Amino acid sequence: MNKAEANGVIGKSVKRVDAFDKVTGRAKYTDDLCDRSAYVAKILHSTIANGRVLSIDCSEAENVPGVVKIVTCFDVPKNYFPTAGHPWSTDPAHQDVSDRLLLTDRVRFYGDEVAAVVAEDEVAAAQALRAIRVEYEEYPVVLDVQEAMKDGAPQLHEEYPNNILKHTSIRNGNYEEAIQEPGLIKVEGWYDTPTVQHCHIENFICYAEEDAGKMKVVTSTQIPHIVRRVVGQALGIPWGKVRVIKPYVGGGFGNKQDVLYEPLCAYLSIQLGGRLVKLDVSREETFVCNRVRHAIRSHIISYVRPDGTFAARKLECFSNQGAYASHGHSIAAKGMGAFPQLYPCPNVEADAYTVFTNRPVAGAMRGYGIPQAMFAVESHTDDVARAIGMSPLAFRQKNLMPKGYVDHFSKNELYQDTFQQCMEKGRCYIDYDRKVKEYADQKGGIRRGIGLAAFWYNTAVWPISLETSACRMVLNQDGSVQVQVGETEIGQGADTAFTQMAADTLGVTMDKVYVLSSQDTDVTPFGTGAYASRQTYTAGFAIHQTALLLKEKILNYAHELTRMPASILELENGVIRRKSDGRELLSLEELATEAIYSLTHSEHMTAESTYQTKSNAYSFGCTIAEVEVDIPACKVKLLDIVNVHDCGRLINPSLAEAQVHGGMSMGIGFGLSEGLKFDEKTGKVLNNSLLDYKLSTCMDHPDLEGEFVENYEPTSVYGTKGLGEPPVCSVAPAIRNAVLQATGVAIDELPLNPHKLFERFQENGLV
Amino acid sequence: MNKAEANGVIGKSVKRVDAFDKVTGRAKYTDDLCDRSAYVAKILHSTIANGRVLSIDCSEAENVPGVVKIVTCFDVPKNYFPTAGHPWSTDPAHQDVSDRLLLTDRVRFYGDEVAAVVAEDEVAAAQALRAIRVEYEEYPVVLDVQEAMKDGAPQLHEEYPNNILKHTSIRNGNYEEAIQEPGLIKVEGWYDTPTVQHCHIENFICYAEEDAGKMKVVTSTQIPHIVRRVVGQALGIPWGKVRVIKPYVGGGFGNKQDVLYEPLCAYLSIQLGGRLVKLDVSREETFVCNRVRHAIRSHIISYVRPDGTFAARKLECFSNQGAYASHGHSIAAKGMGAFPQLYPCPNVEADAYTVFTNRPVAGAMRGYGIPQAMFAVESHTDDVARAIGMSPLAFRQKNLMPKGYVDHFSKNELYQDTFQQCMEKGRCYIDYDRKVKEYADQKGGIRRGIGLAAFWYNTAVWPISLETSACRMVLNQDGSVQVQVGETEIGQGADTAFTQMAADTLGVTMDKVYVLSSQDTDVTPFGTGAYASRQTYTAGFAIHQTALLLKEKILNYAHELTRMPASILELENGVIRRKSDGRELLSLEELATEAIYSLTHSEHMTAESTYQTKSNAYSFGCTIAEVEVDIPACKVKLLDIVNVHDCGRLINPSLAEAQVHGGMSMGIGFGLSEGLKFDEKTGKVLNNSLLDYKLSTCMDHPDLEGEFVENYEPTSVYGTKGLGEPPVCSVAPAIRNAVLQATGVAIDELPLNPHKLFERFQENGLV
Repeated sequence: MNKAEANGVIGKSVKRVDAFDKVTGRAKYTDDLCDRSAYVAKILHSTIANGRVLSIDCSEAENVPGVVKIVTCFDVPKNYFPTAGHPWSTDPAHQDVSDRLLLTDRVRFYGDEVAAVVAEDEVAAAQALRAIRVEYEEYPVVLDVQEAMKDGAPQLHEEYPNNILKHTSIRNGNYEEAIQEPGLIKVEGWYDTPTVQHCHIENFICYAEEDAGKMKVVTSTQIPHIVRRVVGQALGIPWGKVRVIKPYVGGGFGNKQDVLYEPLCAYLSIQLGGRLVKLDVSREETFVCNRVRHAIRSHIISYVRPDGTFAARKLECFSNQGAYASHGHSIAAKGMGAFPQLYPCPNVEADAYTVFTNRPVAGAMRGYGIPQAMFAVESHTDDVARAIGMSPLAFRQKNLMPKGYVDHFSKNELYQDTFQQCMEKGRCYIDYDRKVKEYADQKGGIRRGIGLAAFWYNTAVWPISLETSACRMVLNQDGSVQVQVGETEIGQGADTAFTQMAADTLGVTMDKVYVLSSQDTDVTPFGTGAYASRQTYTAGFAIHQTALLLKEKILNYAHELTRMPASILELENGVIRRKSDGRELLSLEELATEAIYSLTHSEHMTAESTYQTKSNAYSFGCTIAEVEVDIPACKVKLLDIVNVHDCGRLINPSLAEAQVHGGMSMGIGFGLSEGLKFDEKTGKVLNNSLLDYKLSTCMDHPDLEGEFVENYEPTSVYGTKGLGEPPVCSVAPAIRNAVLQATGVAIDELPLNPHKLFERFQENGLV
Repeated sequence: MNKAEANGVIGKSVKRVDAFDKVTGRAKYTDDLCDRSAYVAKILHSTIANGRVLSIDCSEAENVPGVVKIVTCFDVPKNYFPTAGHPWSTDPAHQDVSDRLLLTDRVRFYGDEVAAVVAEDEVAAAQALRAIRVEYEEYPVVLDVQEAMKDGAPQLHEEYPNNILKHTSIRNGNYEEAIQEPGLIKVEGWYDTPTVQHCHIENFICYAEEDAGKMKVVTSTQIPHIVRRVVGQALGIPWGKVRVIKPYVGGGFGNKQDVLYEPLCAYLSIQLGGRLVKLDVSREETFVCNRVRHAIRSHIISYVRPDGTFAARKLECFSNQGAYASHGHSIAAKGMGAFPQLYPCPNVEADAYTVFTNRPVAGAMRGYGIPQAMFAVESHTDDVARAIGMSPLAFRQKNLMPKGYVDHFSKNELYQDTFQQCMEKGRCYIDYDRKVKEYADQKGGIRRGIGLAAFWYNTAVWPISLETSACRMVLNQDGSVQVQVGETEIGQGADTAFTQMAADTLGVTMDKVYVLSSQDTDVTPFGTGAYASRQTYTAGFAIHQTALLLKEKILNYAHELTRMPASILELENGVIRRKSDGRELLSLEELATEAIYSLTHSEHMTAESTYQTKSNAYSFGCTIAEVEVDIPACKVKLLDIVNVHDCGRLINPSLAEAQVHGGMSMGIGFGLSEGLKFDEKTGKVLNNSLLDYKLSTCMDHPDLEGEFVENYEPTSVYGTKGLGEPPVCSVAPAIRNAVLQATGVAIDELPLNPHKLFERFQENGLV
């Protein structure tokens, strides 16, 4: 038992620190903080998906009462900037693609930004938008990723022939030689995932004004310190002249890991002499003009021996980037990276293409390529098992990444037999063996099936990119502390986990720790924000290191007061004790008050430090889903579903479970109902509302079961690793595999909605 | 020439850092930041000056539409708290008197707080106030300080017999023996100063709400960290559970060095479940229910030899504390402390009494007792000079504190022949000798005179109380820095001086330094605030020390990048150079960007430290005023006036001059027109508005001349010392002495308004 466990804060399902404020409606989100006197900005979106703006006539719009300013694509500086929420790199070769302007005359998707109106109120702004006349030159539209790669396809960005933003490859062993082995069984499949949207409750909103010599931007973002940098880049001003403040955020799921309209809002404020300008977007704009998940088409060929081992494997994946680079190739690359690792095989060829099309811009979304990759890989795994007559479970038990596996790039290691443990737990929960047998040979219109899928997810971004987190702690007179980190609470409960960590390491009770939820880039230590399931892992290092520094200062001061050496003292639950006999010498409150007000040695005790993380950790898990398929109705009903996760030690089991539930729900939507629909001719999104877009809700699924295998992660200071994104990764393929078991039909395109089932059941003679 | 001067930032009249925001109206003050949805609180003030509330009937008030809550003196906890803006002491003997409740049924001045209304808007709150019925038991009223000391006078606080809050004495040498010396001339006088108010432009305002587990109070205060402590004390909650934020402040002058209604506002919020409650006060309330300057009556006896030296001196001063202790005895004690130091004399008896009366509460006000003391001492000095036939200048040249004088309590030393230098400078400016001669023997109704007064003022509060200041600096990617200190900008230009200091010591240009003007006790390093003319002196130490720490980190990082030892590197104007040959190695911007984004050593560079000041410094100066007295009209016209200050090295000459102008204007009001008038029977203030209270404005005085003697203060890290309060100290006695020269009439009671002149001119047969 280590000290942390002795203090008893880590691993407890304590109440969320923001629970009271959030359930009472008192918590302040961006819109709550914006002064009502703010000007309102609205964006004019293009009504073509590909082409060029020839002219914009604002004369009528300018006469709308209340209109303050209209800016068009012809007014803004030609200052290209990137939008991805990645840590910056000083190496140009590793910088994100700079392909965005504040407004553009070269339109690349239906909804691109061509002008902006600032008005005294919403109504005037909306009226002015309607009064603007835009003349376009239209080009042909391409929406399909492979069509876009063809010679002669419409070109979105001159610098990228055949619209290929990037192509990367993996070559392990010798695929061509390996497939010559006699007796191999070839299994081949194409797997398609749709364009989906994050659907966080709080739409994007920001406001900007000049304040105290700076451009101040308050925004609903996951990445305040990155927004600061990008606003500086977009406006061509020093980054220190930008101040970004992040209030409570009503969900992000990766959409707010992109810089969205903060630069435009700041620009509009500058055009008005620094006046306060608010820019919030509607749900309809959120679906089309923010970011979406990459639709990825994967092609997998496996050569398998009859004993159930892989001889050689090949993957091609085509990632639909939409109109602009955003997170670019990193998502397809991450998805591809999962392929050779999940089922190690000596001979692998993999190629990932990220391709521009005239769809909405794809960016980060919970899982960052892995849900798409897992759909392909884990659907394919069932196809392979089926082809060689092995059970899906037995095939995985034989082939999944074994204990001791080390990835030589990330140095990630699988320290335990985690996959077996997770599958075993899920198998017990759902009574797998009995049901698989029971559902083996069904007839009739209503059939049941059970499906399994595994996943792998790495925590944080090292060594691909920088991982750094800084933390500051401030001791108050009453022995309580404020904790500041750049990692952000976006609804997931990060502040609560940070509170537990700080209390544990410092040696105070949780009620004495105040994590400052709102980041302010002027005062909050640098940290890159919420993404890559990095919060507890990365910020954990900084919190731990800083708490130890503060404790050292406290014990040194205790030495001055008690004349006992700091080395024989300990701080536990807010009390300074002598280690040897446990005697209570003084409370932290007494010490803290004396430290500030002492006439001999006054010191405001704080500690601050940066921790650069140079490790990474695998997070693992699996989903088992049980479905009932109504074949005549072409409907899938989810009967039961369990996710089992190894995300290391749980900081807060209740919060971890909630995180799993949320991810599972998102995975269910991905599997069964969600997907943007496009008018093939115009590229217009047809279902950009929560009425038409079939978001999965709690009405659509059974009780969700989240279970854990708590293998302490040895590289992690609190034994924990990523859990934010993992829960979404293996849900859809588990459902797909359950439908396969129930019906014998392998449906390789998401979502598994009635339209698709009808089509595939017809092909297979079921309806 | 030291490095600072080489960098050329200190000593330059750079533009105020907040100039743009303030002249454009963009700067945010407390009311600008308060959400419009806030409930409005208003206070019911007593309509008697002494007595007890027997009952309060709120039934009618509760029915006023929009009224949310009414709280009376019978509802609040009996939790006494202090209000003085002093650093706390852990020694009970040095703690401020705790004699305030949130609301009181024992009323002690006309305007005391007996109930509070919270309503949806101002109108409802005002209507409800009018509808509350209060039944009082009335006691006799005492307003005069010496009357209050008499046996049988009405008693305000049981614990203080004869209403004496405190009496302290100084005994040097042997007064009684010394006055036996033959040939001594005895000069005796009584000197009276009025109750005046600060009249800052922004009235006090605060708002409070529960937020993220804390009681958050945003307030127009000089002392956010002290407000935090007092709100905690008043509400009986841990101090760390209180978060105080100070926006821009529209003047304070000491009134906002008291905790005013922050505790009440926070209490009202708690009564409403933590809802946002705003409490702002009217000008009428400001005059009566905030704080006022102590009216002090002084009695001085001097025994002087014919050669113009002092044999023995005696002082009694009676300080009118009003109804509650607030800053208590410290003001009278400070004023008394000036007496034996300004004109050192071997045999001194001094006694200061601070006495409760039924007047408004006296607290801190610019000068903190010294304007009152200087009026007495410097009026008396002219009386003495006149009595022995010496010129006022010659007498002062002979007797003022000489170079080398050391005060053995504070260890303050007069390092230069400062008084002579200041008087000499003023004498040249105003052509003193010629005019004194010219005005020596006037007849007629219009006569002119010239008057001189000196003052002494110590900087900061050590060793009376704690002097501590902590500072944090945060380096941005572009090489700019944020600076945070607890010392507050309240309109005086502190942020600009801090910017100059930080830029100078760190070695960057001023445009790269952002002082965070708004203090937030959760994140701003501890510092006690703006008072005691301590800002540049005390915060200067912390800024200097912290800038050196940050520079050390920067140069150590430069070592990593350049492989040259940090010891041979220097940072100047944002460039890291090799000292030996001055070669530019890299810019701070390059280093700062690399430091954050480095893949080998990422570090968010910040520095933070506390500096406890254990020194103090004398600040000196004098005023020479030239007046024209219209004897028939009983009017004094100020023709010319000059203040000469030695406040050490000037950080920013323009700001220093502005500070002097403001202080002189306040001194002119004190001398000629200002004073609260009381109804002797009821204790009601009769002129609590800017219409009736004769505040001095620029229409009332000639161009003000501020001059400086820049003697580098050797104890100060930037060579500077206090200037905030000194400009007000010697103005009124210089005017009084000028009137004396013009008319031969010694008017020993301020203000010198027509009523008083008529009375005294009549007594002296002039009218």
